[in-house]
Amino acid sequence: MTDNRPHLRVAMIGHSFMGRTHSQAWRSAPRFFNLPLVPEMAVLVGRDAERTQAAAEKLGWAEAATDWRAVLERDDVDLVDICTPGDSHAEIAEAALASGKHVLVEKPLANSVEEAESMAAAARRAREFGARSMVGFTYRRVPALQLAQQLIAEGRIGEIRQVRAQYLQDWLADAEAPLGWRLDKEKAGSGALGDIGAHIVDMTCFLTGQRFAGVSGMLETFVHERPVAESSAGLSGTAGVGRGPVTVDDAALATARLESGATVSLEASRFAWGRKNAMRIELSGTQGAIAFDFEDMNVLEVYDATEPARTAGFRRILATEPEHPYLEAWWPPGHALGYEHGFTHQVVDLVEAIAAGEDPTPSFDDGLHVQRVLDAVERSSLNENRWTQIQTPTS
Amino acid sequence: MTDNRPHLRVAMIGHSFMGRTHSQAWRSAPRFFNLPLVPEMAVLVGRDAERTQAAAEKLGWAEAATDWRAVLERDDVDLVDICTPGDSHAEIAEAALASGKHVLVEKPLANSVEEAESMAAAARRAREFGARSMVGFTYRRVPALQLAQQLIAEGRIGEIRQVRAQYLQDWLADAEAPLGWRLDKEKAGSGALGDIGAHIVDMTCFLTGQRFAGVSGMLETFVHERPVAESSAGLSGTAGVGRGPVTVDDAALATARLESGATVSLEASRFAWGRKNAMRIELSGTQGAIAFDFEDMNVLEVYDATEPARTAGFRRILATEPEHPYLEAWWPPGHALGYEHGFTHQVVDLVEAIAAGEDPTPSFDDGLHVQRVLDAVERSSLNENRWTQIQTPTS
Amino acid sequence: MTDNRPHLRVAMIGHSFMGRTHSQAWRSAPRFFNLPLVPEMAVLVGRDAERTQAAAEKLGWAEAATDWRAVLERDDVDLVDICTPGDSHAEIAEAALASGKHVLVEKPLANSVEEAESMAAAARRAREFGARSMVGFTYRRVPALQLAQQLIAEGRIGEIRQVRAQYLQDWLADAEAPLGWRLDKEKAGSGALGDIGAHIVDMTCFLTGQRFAGVSGMLETFVHERPVAESSAGLSGTAGVGRGPVTVDDAALATARLESGATVSLEASRFAWGRKNAMRIELSGTQGAIAFDFEDMNVLEVYDATEPARTAGFRRILATEPEHPYLEAWWPPGHALGYEHGFTHQVVDLVEAIAAGEDPTPSFDDGLHVQRVLDAVERSSLNENRWTQIQTPTS
Amino acid sequence: MTDNRPHLRVAMIGHSFMGRTHSQAWRSAPRFFNLPLVPEMAVLVGRDAERTQAAAEKLGWAEAATDWRAVLERDDVDLVDICTPGDSHAEIAEAALASGKHVLVEKPLANSVEEAESMAAAARRAREFGARSMVGFTYRRVPALQLAQQLIAEGRIGEIRQVRAQYLQDWLADAEAPLGWRLDKEKAGSGALGDIGAHIVDMTCFLTGQRFAGVSGMLETFVHERPVAESSAGLSGTAGVGRGPVTVDDAALATARLESGATVSLEASRFAWGRKNAMRIELSGTQGAIAFDFEDMNVLEVYDATEPARTAGFRRILATEPEHPYLEAWWPPGHALGYEHGFTHQVVDLVEAIAAGEDPTPSFDDGLHVQRVLDAVERSSLNENRWTQIQTPTS
Repeated sequence: MTDNRPHLRVAMIGHSFMGRTHSQAWRSAPRFFNLPLVPEMAVLVGRDAERTQAAAEKLGWAEAATDWRAVLERDDVDLVDICTPGDSHAEIAEAALASGKHVLVEKPLANSVEEAESMAAAARRAREFGARSMVGFTYRRVPALQLAQQLIAEGRIGEIRQVRAQYLQDWLADAEAPLGWRLDKEKAGSGALGDIGAHIVDMTCFLTGQRFAGVSGMLETFVHERPVAESSAGLSGTAGVGRGPVTVDDAALATARLESGATVSLEASRFAWGRKNAMRIELSGTQGAIAFDFEDMNVLEVYDATEPARTAGFRRILATEPEHPYLEAWWPPGHALGYEHGFTHQVVDLVEAIAAGEDPTPSFDDGLHVQRVLDAVERSSLNENRWTQIQTPTS
Repeated sequence: MTDNRPHLRVAMIGHSFMGRTHSQAWRSAPRFFNLPLVPEMAVLVGRDAERTQAAAEKLGWAEAATDWRAVLERDDVDLVDICTPGDSHAEIAEAALASGKHVLVEKPLANSVEEAESMAAAARRAREFGARSMVGFTYRRVPALQLAQQLIAEGRIGEIRQVRAQYLQDWLADAEAPLGWRLDKEKAGSGALGDIGAHIVDMTCFLTGQRFAGVSGMLETFVHERPVAESSAGLSGTAGVGRGPVTVDDAALATARLESGATVSLEASRFAWGRKNAMRIELSGTQGAIAFDFEDMNVLEVYDATEPARTAGFRRILATEPEHPYLEAWWPPGHALGYEHGFTHQVVDLVEAIAAGEDPTPSFDDGLHVQRVLDAVERSSLNENRWTQIQTPTS
Repeated sequence: MTDNRPHLRVAMIGHSFMGRTHSQAWRSAPRFFNLPLVPEMAVLVGRDAERTQAAAEKLGWAEAATDWRAVLERDDVDLVDICTPGDSHAEIAEAALASGKHVLVEKPLANSVEEAESMAAAARRAREFGARSMVGFTYRRVPALQLAQQLIAEGRIGEIRQVRAQYLQDWLADAEAPLGWRLDKEKAGSGALGDIGAHIVDMTCFLTGQRFAGVSGMLETFVHERPVAESSAGLSGTAGVGRGPVTVDDAALATARLESGATVSLEASRFAWGRKNAMRIELSGTQGAIAFDFEDMNVLEVYDATEPARTAGFRRILATEPEHPYLEAWWPPGHALGYEHGFTHQVVDLVEAIAAGEDPTPSFDDGLHVQRVLDAVERSSLNENRWTQIQTPTS
Repeated sequence: MTDNRPHLRVAMIGHSFMGRTHSQAWRSAPRFFNLPLVPEMAVLVGRDAERTQAAAEKLGWAEAATDWRAVLERDDVDLVDICTPGDSHAEIAEAALASGKHVLVEKPLANSVEEAESMAAAARRAREFGARSMVGFTYRRVPALQLAQQLIAEGRIGEIRQVRAQYLQDWLADAEAPLGWRLDKEKAGSGALGDIGAHIVDMTCFLTGQRFAGVSGMLETFVHERPVAESSAGLSGTAGVGRGPVTVDDAALATARLESGATVSLEASRFAWGRKNAMRIELSGTQGAIAFDFEDMNVLEVYDATEPARTAGFRRILATEPEHPYLEAWWPPGHALGYEHGFTHQVVDLVEAIAAGEDPTPSFDDGLHVQRVLDAVERSSLNENRWTQIQTPTS
């Protein structure tokens, strides 16, 4: 029983939180799923040689490297997985695509619409030569949300009229929590808006199959100065020790419409005490509703309005049955999946698309659209919350 | 043991849903609470003599009458309880106050800011002569929400940074649900906005102790025409049978700020399938958070951020202990109160204020402020969602 | 429009917790339901003349009296509502039935099987003469539980295989909570077993339509001595002040079977910190399951196993729709009912049965069966938990 | 930066459900935790050469083998991980210990008390020579339950008075679900009792730090015959195709006491429709309570009775903070762990104990005690549910 499957040699750039998560996904996917290509954790790229070497050993990458441009030149690398902060996404992704590599880039796609447009154009060009690109909105691969998408696509709740989406965390609610790169506009592009707001924008598109038409938005920064942590060294505006300025939003609120006219309320906050990772979305349609909360991530709640009123009610579906997306590969019913499984499923879907010669989703165009929505929220916020159209995606 | 307490003779105008609810409150309050005045259910006023007589017997009012102006002239009436649709509130309330009666008026105070201003002015004038006035935002008297207000006032969650409030129902989500007066702008003033949005606006003010500074709003009507029900006869625009136009909003969304700058997201909808009466509010402060959902109305959830992270979590307080507001008068712990108890507590607080010669809350000024917020939402909605200041209340 | 309905003149004995609750029910029922007989709150009977008079005024009874035997002789009393502690139920109920009165007696029916048998025999004799009798297991009249019974009777969850029932409170978990009559075996018969265990035994019978076949039981008293409260004066074994003995169980556990062989687990405890009135029952059948928790009393959870696994899940039915039992008389969907509504519904069903000349349920025979189950639990507990058959009810 | 840590070479026997789960744990543990020994997935042992080879490749084991006795002889194996059905545990574990290997054996320890006693004795002997043994009750390593244990040990809820434990699944509720080895008494020892009941017995011991003193038990088989699946071939009593007998219990109920006298109610069922893996435990102490449900496995609910009644309530702790057990190695707050993480943590604790020269827990003595409780439940069930003492563990 020889394994004749071709290999897919991966280089990953970045090895902090996202790097650790992606490593677990690359490692686990082939152990549970029958992949058409065998992923090889070939090379880990970081800035510091010693720390990168240590990370490579710890996370299970065959090699360590510090020059990502050199890695892109290598013939023995097929795919580049970009886990760096948003300000370097465009440069690395475009270079990788130009080298003919497949690219997976963490969300948000970029820090600006301009970068995102350039990346999307690069992805379209590379597609001609068979290089695939994907942006890492992994919540699309949570089984309960995948199920939600299927049910909506099947018409189970009819036409969508209203979406309510929140992404609530509390890790900055303590005014003395230290500055980090995520609070620096130059590194991160924006705050809650791009970090977690991006997820609910993408999730709304994914679940409804629609784009946003326009938004009215409001951004707010509650804490304007924070203690500089050692790890914050080098952030713009921080002078060694003491306190430094927060240059991004702490919370973002928006009222929006989809192409169909459906209304959307959006709220992203890192100041919602007690909410640790409450990515919540509820969609009300003409025939029912669907609700999800990531703090109870294996559950999908579905209301079927065609039921007689006497027995109608939100049904709490524990999305851990073999009939549910991705679940056949895992554990028996009721044995929960966790955060990292979305990343594993992302690897599965990406590898399958590459092997099939198809474009994976979410595409860079999808990522560009999210960027446009975030940008419109920001512009509206600076313009008396005024209604701001979202540019139609070029295609 | 003779009862020397003075009586408070009540005339109630209107006997449909709210009339039934208020009747149960007037009947129950003196049975559970030691009131300083003995309420007398003296006279019920309606338009149709026969139906009003039947309602008076059924609901337990001593007399029935059809001419509310005549009732206001009577010396044996001390208080007028106005349960009619919003378009008649101003006229009746002002006349009652002019007659020296105390007035309780159902929410929303009026159908327009102009009417509300006029009523508030009338209330201020009448106060000089000892006539008290109150607007019926009864959710303030739900024990769990009363507890919330106390905890916030005590500083338990610090300064409020963010409010998230929703009021979700689904009774109009069926596009074939019939027209009724609540869908007629002339009768109801607005749709979801004034009917249920008013509650979350008032609740935000009550819990934070603040007024709104401004809003950006959006209104939406999903279903523009509905079958005319028999009971809809006479509504504007309905021509006997067939279908008639919906002239109010089905859903209202807003992003707002309080005087302190705290952000508020508001959503009122009658199209949220599966949500029957989900009046939800969550307040995040500098030191914690509080959350409530009327569908589980005896519960308050409180997060105390001064707890060590290891044992911090939302505490589910079942607000049915004798230590909780109003509860000593009722049942043992865990024996739920229902919707009507808020109305009974409203009677208790109103009667106590009258006996003490104090002004009850929420006042007509409070009602006027709510009206101004609703009006600003509507104007913003017609003006590209633009930020709209709320007029500072005159005092 | 004259009201020609006959009246039903009620005498109530006892005016503490249950007396207050029953008063609210007698008062409210005719205001919301169209009853065939008009209840009259005629006379309240208590031991102390002054306190009874005060209670009658407060609770709304026309007269007060202290000699219950004299009241039973009166021609202007049609029904006797017994709200005294269990040790007096048998004597009063049998005398009332002998006088030809209808009888409603609070649960548990009696403090012993012997008394209960005698009462059930009396009820059977009285039935011949048209006197009706009912035992007050009011949880049968909670809409969500009434709905549960209907769904089970319709076969929605198939044949019942397993019942899990708990009744958890915590009002005695504090070892310094004072002695009261409910801790005195002579007054109360038993502790958690008869007070709250009785409810889950009856609820199991009600929902399954079956009797118990046998049990294995265990009783436990955690705190054997408690401070004597002023109000405990006169309890057996208490010598004025200081501490007195607890002579009843604090918790009761049992494993049982119904006639069909279905298994039942029962647990009643007043020591379950944090559980205030958690009367919970879950029934698993061949085709589904039903679950209920009184701490969320307007909700019924239903699992339909005939659903495809992909979309199956417990459905959270908010039993507040007009389609639900009793609800048409009350408020709009989502507007919760409370604890007292079960008592109001009990009055409705009792009055309707009397008017129709039918025997209401639960009957004294039903109450006797509960008593037999409680007795068997106690005997098993004293006999190494050994399996103990329940005597087949005579009929 | 050379890695000088010694390796721990593992041989795993069995590669179905548990084998897959253990493989993921051996693979993941060193990637997230700093282990003192480096685990090597050396050899996978199965009965069928071809299938074992395929499994080894899929699951990431360096070698495959079919003769477990030969593997025990190898010098290059340090630890044997036994994932076979219970009937082979004793033979393999004792042989492995005799060969000086460390042993991890899946729960339940054995299929009978006799086997378990023999294994515990072997473990005690082997300990002298430095061979460590552990039984795989992995739920002890779920962070929320580990936290529960710590809080109880710290006295947070005082002395335990009552334990309520359930383990509810529904995978056999369909009477046409096929026969498998878990329904065969010879292979599995018992049904729900040993498979899932064992977990709640062990969890009770773990959380309370106590042993069981005695039980009263009841076993039930609802479906006595099932279709023979292909995979059931060879089970005792099955004649090729058609239907075969179920020889184990479908549900187990027990009422028990711990050494301290605390009461325990236990229920294990595979027939609880809608409950997929509801391993639930609630402990009520003198000063509070703790509750857990595996279907929401990242949450621990804690009630602190020393709180004032006004603000007391079950606190919903999301056990995903860095302050929680094992969590520092994983994701940010609110990013859920899943079922498999308990197994990863088990590897971590086992490896650390081996490196430290300490005995890991749960020990074979712990596993033996669980076996004695299961045995007592079974004997009680056959003896009119009579109270059955648990033998004091030899030590």
